Amino acid sequence: MFEFKITAQKGDARTGSFKTPHGTIETPVFMPVGTKGTVKTMMPEELKQIGSQIILANTYHLYLRPGDKTVAVLGGLHKFMNWDGPILTDSGGYQVFSLAHGTKSKSGEKLVKIKENGVEFRSILDGSKHFFTPKKVMEIEHNLGADIIMAFDECPPAISSKKYAKEAMERTHRWAAQCKKEHEKLLRKSEKKQALFPIIQGCMYEDLRLQSTKFMADLDLPGIAIGGLAVGEPRKTTWKIVDAIIPHLPKNKPRYMMGIGTPEDIKEAIKRGIDMFDCVLPTRLGRHGTAFTSKGNLHLENESNKLSKKPLDPKCGCYTCKNYTRAYLRHLIMEKEILGIHLLSLHNIAFLHTVVNEEKKKILRK
Amino acid sequence: MFEFKITAQKGDARTGSFKTPHGTIETPVFMPVGTKGTVKTMMPEELKQIGSQIILANTYHLYLRPGDKTVAVLGGLHKFMNWDGPILTDSGGYQVFSLAHGTKSKSGEKLVKIKENGVEFRSILDGSKHFFTPKKVMEIEHNLGADIIMAFDECPPAISSKKYAKEAMERTHRWAAQCKKEHEKLLRKSEKKQALFPIIQGCMYEDLRLQSTKFMADLDLPGIAIGGLAVGEPRKTTWKIVDAIIPHLPKNKPRYMMGIGTPEDIKEAIKRGIDMFDCVLPTRLGRHGTAFTSKGNLHLENESNKLSKKPLDPKCGCYTCKNYTRAYLRHLIMEKEILGIHLLSLHNIAFLHTVVNEEKKKILRK
Repeated sequence: MFEFKITAQKGDARTGSFKTPHGTIETPVFMPVGTKGTVKTMMPEELKQIGSQIILANTYHLYLRPGDKTVAVLGGLHKFMNWDGPILTDSGGYQVFSLAHGTKSKSGEKLVKIKENGVEFRSILDGSKHFFTPKKVMEIEHNLGADIIMAFDECPPAISSKKYAKEAMERTHRWAAQCKKEHEKLLRKSEKKQALFPIIQGCMYEDLRLQSTKFMADLDLPGIAIGGLAVGEPRKTTWKIVDAIIPHLPKNKPRYMMGIGTPEDIKEAIKRGIDMFDCVLPTRLGRHGTAFTSKGNLHLENESNKLSKKPLDPKCGCYTCKNYTRAYLRHLIMEKEILGIHLLSLHNIAFLHTVVNEEKKKILRK
Repeated sequence: MFEFKITAQKGDARTGSFKTPHGTIETPVFMPVGTKGTVKTMMPEELKQIGSQIILANTYHLYLRPGDKTVAVLGGLHKFMNWDGPILTDSGGYQVFSLAHGTKSKSGEKLVKIKENGVEFRSILDGSKHFFTPKKVMEIEHNLGADIIMAFDECPPAISSKKYAKEAMERTHRWAAQCKKEHEKLLRKSEKKQALFPIIQGCMYEDLRLQSTKFMADLDLPGIAIGGLAVGEPRKTTWKIVDAIIPHLPKNKPRYMMGIGTPEDIKEAIKRGIDMFDCVLPTRLGRHGTAFTSKGNLHLENESNKLSKKPLDPKCGCYTCKNYTRAYLRHLIMEKEILGIHLLSLHNIAFLHTVVNEEKKKILRK
């Protein structure tokens, strides 16, 4: 289980396959995000039909509602959400920090308190107090039961000082080691097979990033992730950091760059030898009436679509493009009809899968 | 075209088939409502898969947005919404009155002004002034291009005085005759085939209902509808009126009772020899987290569903019931996830089709 094989290579770019308990993932792969146990608007069969191989779910949200123990009682995340393919859960770290950074309660109290052994935070739902430690996060992710689970990390804002970035990184290192230990303990007690991926941090500081890469690579886990990028910094900086990291990553393990999901970013990531990426963008844009197309983003509300019999993208072969005109989709979006949001989300995810497949073909065509 | 054949009979109940340009409808039939050119949340293929034969669309809403002329330019309603089966459009009469009855503009002006030749009303969208006449409504319905189109009618509130009910009924009679004339004129200019159905009115007054039945039957159109029932009056009254009307309806034409859509009402209607009915209820209940079941309505938000691994209805064979637990559906509804609304709407429509099919079997089992 969790073997990664490189099947083709061209420059730094590569194709591969990664074996998980719920099926083998062909990489590079875009992973749609199912925040609360549903890739928004999409049925599992539709995801499979458009080529989704693995989906994400969010530990933070599922821990708060319906609760990881509830999911466990109901047979785990796969059964709960009727998805029998691979699933990856994030660690909740990103949400704990990003949903509360800089915010304070009415009494002026900080909503997130970082301590050596973990993070105290308040729920975005009801303000209730919670405490995440590496041990706690591993328990939650084991309860959820995804194929790939992420180590608990601190993801500081892009603009953090070097001093703070270093502290956060070192905490993330200690937490990753604790996660590994706890994960191995839990694995021994369970029949489930789950792969733990650590997350490289270090903000926009190359030397910290290299330290973090070395530390995480040395943990020798089945895969490795790059976190804390594409969080507001200029893209030039993003790729500079990735370029610094790449040569120091283990060659024979899948590399996951977190939060990447525009057609352009996906191409840049694949070119550099990234194997996995995720983003909420395709479904979020869908909800706001925007479609990816080979000529850039299309905003359906524009009057110019009112009488258009064209599909969203004449080159796209998805269900939406084969069956619906821009005029009808615009009408649905203007009327806030659920079918419109669904059809756009489906197209946007399918579009990203197509982008990945085109890049794959280039790697295979030697 | 538009031949109606009775295929079996048991008491007053009957099964039949009605031929339309987009396929033959097997009756009795429940028709899901696609108000704005979409049966809320549902893809056309899903509707077919659960057994929907014909769907409704609303003239009032489509006239306001995107506009009937826009729909015509885009190839008509079937092409616009990607539904190649039969469609029925209502006349807009019900919405013109029900969306504005008793309401007044800021300056105290009535929002609906009834005149001999038609109705002046203000759009619920932007307050703009519009005037519907029988001629205008026929033009709109011809632009939309449904298989079955309804005559323009006035649908007064259930509590109307006899004087008002009589006036409204007589107006509706004159308007139906004008619709027929205009429809025939438009048909001669067109290649499309459309069937016009008149609507029996007369509020809760049996003598008026009988007058109206005779008048509408004498128009000798391909089908006939009963309107203005199930609009707030007790069900006992509803069925008393229907019982008075039935013996005077032409036997060999499809009978459409408007606005009927609970499992109980459907059974009552079929028993009396009604062939067609429609209602927004299955999708509306779906949006509010309620499911039809063989044991009555199930409200998913109830805590008792939190850990339930049962399907909505163990006797139901729909996609939702085959693949999802109450616990997951409850989670989706609590989180206001679109997939939850979609899965519930699908189940509710499928459930009503099953109710109809069970009744059909009883008629066929002699």
